[in-house]
Amino acid sequence: MIWNTNLRWRLPVVCLLLEVVMIVLFGVFVRYDMDADPHWVEEKAIKNLTTDLENEFYYRYPSFQDVHVMIFVGFGFLMTFLKRYGYSSLGFNFLLAAFGIQWALLMQGWLHSFDGRYILVNVEKEASHCGGSSCAARGPGAQAHTLVPIHQVKDAGGSMTIHAFGAYFGLTVAWILYRPNLNQSEERKSSVYHSDLFAMIGTLFLWMYWPSFNSAISNHGDAQHRAVINTYCSLAACVLTSVALSSALHRKGKLDMVHIQNASLAGGVGLGTVAELMILPFGSLLIGFICGIVSTLGFVYLTPFLESRLRIQDTCGVHNLHGLPGIIGGAAGAVIASIANIDLYGEEGLAYTFGVERSKTSWNPNMQGRLQAAGLFVSLAMALVGGIIVGLILRLPFWGQPPDENCFDDSVYWEGPSYLPAFPLMTRAETRPVSVAPRTRVCPT
Amino acid sequence: MIWNTNLRWRLPVVCLLLEVVMIVLFGVFVRYDMDADPHWVEEKAIKNLTTDLENEFYYRYPSFQDVHVMIFVGFGFLMTFLKRYGYSSLGFNFLLAAFGIQWALLMQGWLHSFDGRYILVNVEKEASHCGGSSCAARGPGAQAHTLVPIHQVKDAGGSMTIHAFGAYFGLTVAWILYRPNLNQSEERKSSVYHSDLFAMIGTLFLWMYWPSFNSAISNHGDAQHRAVINTYCSLAACVLTSVALSSALHRKGKLDMVHIQNASLAGGVGLGTVAELMILPFGSLLIGFICGIVSTLGFVYLTPFLESRLRIQDTCGVHNLHGLPGIIGGAAGAVIASIANIDLYGEEGLAYTFGVERSKTSWNPNMQGRLQAAGLFVSLAMALVGGIIVGLILRLPFWGQPPDENCFDDSVYWEGPSYLPAFPLMTRAETRPVSVAPRTRVCPT
Amino acid sequence: MIWNTNLRWRLPVVCLLLEVVMIVLFGVFVRYDMDADPHWVEEKAIKNLTTDLENEFYYRYPSFQDVHVMIFVGFGFLMTFLKRYGYSSLGFNFLLAAFGIQWALLMQGWLHSFDGRYILVNVEKEASHCGGSSCAARGPGAQAHTLVPIHQVKDAGGSMTIHAFGAYFGLTVAWILYRPNLNQSEERKSSVYHSDLFAMIGTLFLWMYWPSFNSAISNHGDAQHRAVINTYCSLAACVLTSVALSSALHRKGKLDMVHIQNASLAGGVGLGTVAELMILPFGSLLIGFICGIVSTLGFVYLTPFLESRLRIQDTCGVHNLHGLPGIIGGAAGAVIASIANIDLYGEEGLAYTFGVERSKTSWNPNMQGRLQAAGLFVSLAMALVGGIIVGLILRLPFWGQPPDENCFDDSVYWEGPSYLPAFPLMTRAETRPVSVAPRTRVCPT
Repeated sequence: MIWNTNLRWRLPVVCLLLEVVMIVLFGVFVRYDMDADPHWVEEKAIKNLTTDLENEFYYRYPSFQDVHVMIFVGFGFLMTFLKRYGYSSLGFNFLLAAFGIQWALLMQGWLHSFDGRYILVNVEKEASHCGGSSCAARGPGAQAHTLVPIHQVKDAGGSMTIHAFGAYFGLTVAWILYRPNLNQSEERKSSVYHSDLFAMIGTLFLWMYWPSFNSAISNHGDAQHRAVINTYCSLAACVLTSVALSSALHRKGKLDMVHIQNASLAGGVGLGTVAELMILPFGSLLIGFICGIVSTLGFVYLTPFLESRLRIQDTCGVHNLHGLPGIIGGAAGAVIASIANIDLYGEEGLAYTFGVERSKTSWNPNMQGRLQAAGLFVSLAMALVGGIIVGLILRLPFWGQPPDENCFDDSVYWEGPSYLPAFPLMTRAETRPVSVAPRTRVCPT
Repeated sequence: MIWNTNLRWRLPVVCLLLEVVMIVLFGVFVRYDMDADPHWVEEKAIKNLTTDLENEFYYRYPSFQDVHVMIFVGFGFLMTFLKRYGYSSLGFNFLLAAFGIQWALLMQGWLHSFDGRYILVNVEKEASHCGGSSCAARGPGAQAHTLVPIHQVKDAGGSMTIHAFGAYFGLTVAWILYRPNLNQSEERKSSVYHSDLFAMIGTLFLWMYWPSFNSAISNHGDAQHRAVINTYCSLAACVLTSVALSSALHRKGKLDMVHIQNASLAGGVGLGTVAELMILPFGSLLIGFICGIVSTLGFVYLTPFLESRLRIQDTCGVHNLHGLPGIIGGAAGAVIASIANIDLYGEEGLAYTFGVERSKTSWNPNMQGRLQAAGLFVSLAMALVGGIIVGLILRLPFWGQPPDENCFDDSVYWEGPSYLPAFPLMTRAETRPVSVAPRTRVCPT
Repeated sequence: MIWNTNLRWRLPVVCLLLEVVMIVLFGVFVRYDMDADPHWVEEKAIKNLTTDLENEFYYRYPSFQDVHVMIFVGFGFLMTFLKRYGYSSLGFNFLLAAFGIQWALLMQGWLHSFDGRYILVNVEKEASHCGGSSCAARGPGAQAHTLVPIHQVKDAGGSMTIHAFGAYFGLTVAWILYRPNLNQSEERKSSVYHSDLFAMIGTLFLWMYWPSFNSAISNHGDAQHRAVINTYCSLAACVLTSVALSSALHRKGKLDMVHIQNASLAGGVGLGTVAELMILPFGSLLIGFICGIVSTLGFVYLTPFLESRLRIQDTCGVHNLHGLPGIIGGAAGAVIASIANIDLYGEEGLAYTFGVERSKTSWNPNMQGRLQAAGLFVSLAMALVGGIIVGLILRLPFWGQPPDENCFDDSVYWEGPSYLPAFPLMTRAETRPVSVAPRTRVCPT
């Protein structure tokens, strides 16, 4: 079956229409939060604040920027490892994330910060997290983060509601869209030397800024600080075990860039739920230790199994980077929450960390633990149901999907990638380069 | 005509001389602002400040760093899209920006913060903006930002005084330096696969950190916060319309990396003037929407027209990224300023935003609107006059310009780019690589 | 002699074992500092703090993140200039730094912040500096930063204790490990076009974030602010003189990417010791001016001399980037400290900057200057002794070193780099690509 991959009218119309809808909805519903409104001057006087620094902006802006780097540079470049998919990886990630920011702001606004009339927006609520979720799912992606109804569940860095949800949502979609003849694109489903280096730009920025991701919406002060330290510890440990397993599982002990690019990040995913809890630094190391091992094992044994037996094609290893570590993170959250106590947190700290009234006598750690476990199952269930629905919609034949032999190939959707090396083969001694077809510019109709 | 492109004595002498001049002028004129002086301890006591956080450093440093990333990584990599111009793009941008920082600090210092004896420097005044301006113009670039005499004009992100000025200044210079036979370099005036990926490093860091650029010198608190939110909204909308137009204008609906790399940034330029004004989030989306469309149309229709009819060679599309969106931004500023009112801003907020004394009864929004429009025209006029003067100076034959057939080619000014692919062609089965001439190291005279 | 380069059991066992040891030691010794502990809520009440902003997190987090970018992206990509060493440069730097973070936290903790029972960790003490040191030495690297016994020595940015120490430590190791037949790898000890562009990612992030490195552990307020301004000035001047010398030393006046990539950073190294002292902006420019010249001269004349006469193979130019500028920085520190006075610093400022009790009458600038000079000599002596010990250990034959003809070659330790250009040679007119062996995935034993 030959699909029509010409996007000429479908893509422009969809983009323009969506953006017009956004402008209208923003016009009706979105206003500045007091922190970003000129009335802030008066607000300060009312609240008796002596300094502009109490503006939420100064608590959040550095983390907010780091999270954007993760989404646009991190996820964008991580997928450039495919040798002919660099334009698509960067370009479509850019498009999805730019739309995701706007859409998530509306969704989260209506559900969580709607005052009956307006969504009040500031840098905290700008909700880049959702962008991350949609990128992880590489699909249209409804976010559990938005939808999970149990608000008391702690999930600062989204192990359950972003990573596990996104991964199993995406895998379910991939299961429905299974292409038995995708091996026709097999030759392109691999990397070349420089594409692996480009991918490392993504890996490293994701790794370095993951602590900002896991702490971006934490409480001010110690919680934000602790989430950063815990995430760093987990990520650092994860690098060592990823390297160890990568070498141990190769018959000559050689390392595989795929593991370094992906498994080394699993510690950030696995630490998401417990980021701001009292897991202590050694507990964070332990989670990273386990995630690095499980993720690398997943790449070596599970991904081939998923494809051959379960007919799930997981090209980017989403299951190993987001799925398994997300479940580990959710489970760790249930355990750590259930052993919370006043010694560890202090009386005020305990109430503040779990967001409960100190007078609310019904709350106890054990209940919180069960709540966490429930949150994980709800996330997974929603991922499966949502994935099936979206998968079926995507099977409809008007989406312009490429035929099997053109998957992972920029030339279907992009003008001009000529697949030539950077320069014609010539040595400096030669005077004239081998002729190269110059990149054709767009020809207006 | 064969120019002498040997920079051996000209470049070193100019660099060393300029730097010696800088050291002398800095020695005579530049001192630390109180925020960066050890006497700050005593100042704090005098001002009754209880915390070091009130040091300007903590309000500005994250934005300050982001702006540097834009200038050095962003503009540096953006121009690596040319297949043989990567060294020059990164190296000359690096050199120009490093000098621009020092020079702008002096210029802005004398004009704006000279206390009669010293220029007092801190991270806010370090004036990276000027670096941005000189990069946009890709030339020696006098800055309107420094020179525009009407200080009451609002132009936080420099739509008029940085972008429109820089673009039309540069285009005027290009018009004077028109090379009718530049088509001899045509083959190199295009990209290859990996050079487009390098360029995306530039695009993405520019896109992500543009909110820091537009808010870098805004007032503390709500203004800085609002400028960030507005810029993000505009940039996000701009990506969608750039993609839409790129596809719609191609006969097969394919996307063009040139548009994704450049037009997606136009929303940041267009939002520059109004960044901290009460344009509301939907107004920001609307500006981004328009800028993405106009910029992409510019690339497809206007750039070829400029070259064929007006004899202006705009290789990087400066007119589409900085020129047109800069004018849109300036015009938007005039409109938004003229509808300012106490309902929107609050009484104190209005005075604070526009920097007027509340007792100053002569000020009114309408007047501000006219002032903004005047600022735009002054910027454009200065760009034309300045561009003509500098263009004529640059026509003098002792600058070491490359001949037409060597434009866009690193090998004129750089040792060693051998234009070979990353590795000799060999498969892993082969035992010995095809011989490659190793990169020659510098031979001292 | 053929070494066994199969890492299969050695690398995994070492990594897993080290990480287990880390988990145990962290479990016994490492706890959160009060700023990252839930008891912070109560602490605030006790200390009468009105705002969470006084949490150390908000003073340090942006710098802390910048320093991580330097270590992981900066040093990782800087060494990708070698045409076949990209995987190793990025991967092994990643591994070393991830371990270095944990190890340094313990070492520094025991020596500097051990309360008899626990090491209390926060973002300031997380001690990325040590990671930097180990990267500079490209070896296991004991850190002078940790060991230098004279705590009154000022060395904010580590000119002496990180850069000079690391460089001479590494060079001593290289001297002991001298390989007379390394010229068999000569062909790979060079760059290709795109590998130089990848290296510039490293250079630019190092350059931009060096001010954060030099100010990361400075006192709050003016000291942190001043260290940033001084470092920027030095770096900016250094770019101009590096470019000048690079051109002047080439017979045709052409620039060399090696100098742009490395010498342009020497100003950051040279400014390390004096970063927070009253060197004034023109003094910073002067140090950068000198460092750019000395470093470029080092690349052109000294590196070949070291190899041919002293049998020290300095592939990355560590001596020119870290060694010489580190000594300049240490010397500058001695001079600047010895001319400190109350006029420049203010009475309180002087005491605060040099960390002395105001009543401590024995302290005087002259003594401080001598102390600084002593610190430099101690650093160098420790580098030599440490380098000899570690070098001798590394000569033991069980480390899996590659044979001479496989140095600078990823394929020894990495699965799959096929050294092919990004795409098979084909023009878009051709219908089928030249066959390329797809990247082999890991085969589990």
